[in-house]
Amino acid sequence: MSIHLLPLPGIPAIHPGDDLAALLAAAIENARVGTRPGDILVICQKIVSKAEGRVVALEDVTPSAFATSWADEHEKDARVVELVLRETKRIVRMERGTLIVETGPGWVCANAGIDQSNAVSEGTVTLLPVDADASARGLRASLRERLGADLGVVITDTFGRPWREGQVEFALGVAGIAPLEDLRGGVDLNGRELGVTLIATADHLASAAGLLMGKSDAMPAVLVRGVTGCAPSPEEPAEGRALIRPAEYDLFR
Amino acid sequence: MSIHLLPLPGIPAIHPGDDLAALLAAAIENARVGTRPGDILVICQKIVSKAEGRVVALEDVTPSAFATSWADEHEKDARVVELVLRETKRIVRMERGTLIVETGPGWVCANAGIDQSNAVSEGTVTLLPVDADASARGLRASLRERLGADLGVVITDTFGRPWREGQVEFALGVAGIAPLEDLRGGVDLNGRELGVTLIATADHLASAAGLLMGKSDAMPAVLVRGVTGCAPSPEEPAEGRALIRPAEYDLFR
Repeated sequence: MSIHLLPLPGIPAIHPGDDLAALLAAAIENARVGTRPGDILVICQKIVSKAEGRVVALEDVTPSAFATSWADEHEKDARVVELVLRETKRIVRMERGTLIVETGPGWVCANAGIDQSNAVSEGTVTLLPVDADASARGLRASLRERLGADLGVVITDTFGRPWREGQVEFALGVAGIAPLEDLRGGVDLNGRELGVTLIATADHLASAAGLLMGKSDAMPAVLVRGVTGCAPSPEEPAEGRALIRPAEYDLFR
Repeated sequence: MSIHLLPLPGIPAIHPGDDLAALLAAAIENARVGTRPGDILVICQKIVSKAEGRVVALEDVTPSAFATSWADEHEKDARVVELVLRETKRIVRMERGTLIVETGPGWVCANAGIDQSNAVSEGTVTLLPVDADASARGLRASLRERLGADLGVVITDTFGRPWREGQVEFALGVAGIAPLEDLRGGVDLNGRELGVTLIATADHLASAAGLLMGKSDAMPAVLVRGVTGCAPSPEEPAEGRALIRPAEYDLFR
């Protein structure tokens, strides 16, 4: 019952309109690892966003007065700040040049997940997918057609964390797996109620794949083989958005 | 260049004074996976704490008036609250029955990492190791003697996160690997400065192992094989405490 993290090399630079499922299926075939029941495909958000055309040319963005004033104060690109604000439902922190925001779907992250590095081309940025769960479901369906296999799909993004240095891969969109393992009501080895009650399996999967994704998005897709216990339950939708803590239960918003 | 996560079954329940390195070495030998250069042993904090005697019998704890008043208000065990406060340097949030604190070494976590489940016995709790980096270094040295192999060591704990549901394994103590991969100054595929600048490799390792540790601490140790790029640099100490964000750079303390 060991777990294997299999890199899927050879995925080319992605451009809007590319058939990402076809490219992922080809990468899986070229890796000559086959597919097995329970395999989970973990892919970074950026190639999904690019394929879906979530790409903006900065020269087309006219920043608001608010975006311009804050950008000038902190030596940021006002057009990028403008795009961050357009993706933002609520600002969580706006301090020392850092913008931590809640996006439309409810993710709390720096700069609304907008990243200028590894863009389609110089002068463009990528936005997060509009609905990463829908993206994951679409890829899963298309990969089923192409490979005849029911892969789990996790779409990841790179997140900073309060209190901890460094960034990690966490899950955004999920299809075909349970993002959370619910242990509430379980008991420990002494028969005592468990302290840990909800494991963020999808984030564990994202971070495991992060060991191979590495710098510069050079390895945007990883196949994870051998994980058990994350089959989706019929009662709960297998959606990444289940990882978003509702604001009313959150002590840090 | 795939990565293998190898479970190490058969580790018995740990008690204060147990020779943990001997038990881990036996588990590695019994797993018949050998050791290879670059192998990293990921182990959960609780077995380290127990072996080091960081176990407190609640009947020996006399809670302060402050601990008693807060515990009564939120239906908590005042003796546990008292222990949390004794491990605390600063309270970050104290709301709705949740205590998020900064521990002596600087970790920000719920209840100072004190967990009542899977304790040595009913009526006891385990505290975090006094210095998880020292614990990791000690285990590494002892495993080198026993196995003749230079394993990296990561000691993990289960953390909740602001904004996200579910808990994940993150790193506390580290030996023999670089906990952070520093990409500052690097460039992306377009030659543009990287947006992601510091990857928390040790947290990726912890979360990857979390896929196998699962519920009830039934699998407290995992061997990770095939990770590259985390050799410690001669200039930077390979210490988990590098993952603690200094308070002055933290927007959420």
